[in-house]
Amino acid sequence: MTRLLVASRNAKKLEELRRILAGAGVEVIGLDDVPPFPEAPETGATFEENALAKARDAVAATGLPAVADDSGIAVDALNGMPGVLSARWAGSAKSDPANLKLVLEQVADVPDERLTAAFVCAAALVQPGGEEVVVRGEWPGTLVREPRGTNGFGYDPIFVPEGETRTSAELSSAEKDAISHRGRALHQLLPHLRALTA
Amino acid sequence: MTRLLVASRNAKKLEELRRILAGAGVEVIGLDDVPPFPEAPETGATFEENALAKARDAVAATGLPAVADDSGIAVDALNGMPGVLSARWAGSAKSDPANLKLVLEQVADVPDERLTAAFVCAAALVQPGGEEVVVRGEWPGTLVREPRGTNGFGYDPIFVPEGETRTSAELSSAEKDAISHRGRALHQLLPHLRALTA
Repeated sequence: MTRLLVASRNAKKLEELRRILAGAGVEVIGLDDVPPFPEAPETGATFEENALAKARDAVAATGLPAVADDSGIAVDALNGMPGVLSARWAGSAKSDPANLKLVLEQVADVPDERLTAAFVCAAALVQPGGEEVVVRGEWPGTLVREPRGTNGFGYDPIFVPEGETRTSAELSSAEKDAISHRGRALHQLLPHLRALTA
Repeated sequence: MTRLLVASRNAKKLEELRRILAGAGVEVIGLDDVPPFPEAPETGATFEENALAKARDAVAATGLPAVADDSGIAVDALNGMPGVLSARWAGSAKSDPANLKLVLEQVADVPDERLTAAFVCAAALVQPGGEEVVVRGEWPGTLVREPRGTNGFGYDPIFVPEGETRTSAELSSAEKDAISHRGRALHQLLPHLRALTA
């Protein structure tokens, strides 16, 4: 079984990635399963830049093929932000509840019909030989003003995917994996991951 | 002397507008100088929409020609935000220091060379007869990570205009009026204001 390093320490994210990659004959390990190495801060202007930089660093440090992703929510009324700053939107008060609360306050006066948003995920696969693939998944929807649901993390409790009435925090993990931005991005990577095991 | 209602209660902003319009033969009065009327919240997606809506409301309520402006800072690394949300960027903690602090925290990991920004001002003149003019002034520059200076308001202490080494909070009022976004917008309105007195 091919070992694949997923460049993350986020337990919920790793679990989500393991579920999605379970059928691909790939053993997923996380950053806590390898010796520590210096990680550059995520300073890219795009999700793609950040995902690629993280995957390259992981390959350089471990010699293993590595997948990294960078995800966030793009709120149209905020010109696509929080975007790459989704995890640190509230600054020093950064935490999922603080980030979510700040976004809701910022759009408090924005009319409902302009509360469109999308979860975005860029995923990069980098191989020790130098082959690189970057893909992007988007999950469009709208924001609600009152958080609902306890699944997921981040902005899930205020995001209602297109065609749904539930927030993404009210979807089951399986439902979310099948249609989420991360699911969409990782499914685009699957053929490349299968090639890895061949 | 023609009376012109400037749709603002911000003492510093009124003073700035009075200085700029002083030579135009126009007596500037503010919202505190007229009977109160219901003011719609600023929910436009653009500075222009907000400025026009404010000026229209003021004319409808008072019968006076009215100027309104909407201004803010557009930070490139934040996709042009805080933008129309500049005054409420920190949400419930809204205040000039809280807004400025939040922006600095959000761009903390953004490299210096991407810390470009611009102050933007849309100014609208609406006349009782229905004539409407909307203009836009922009003042490009860069952000600094440590606030400096005590003049001005809002984001002035972290904005260094192009060609300057001082922040806009370190410029004198006269220097600022001559080159600021608001100055640039209002100077575009001057011919229309002079026509008003004719």
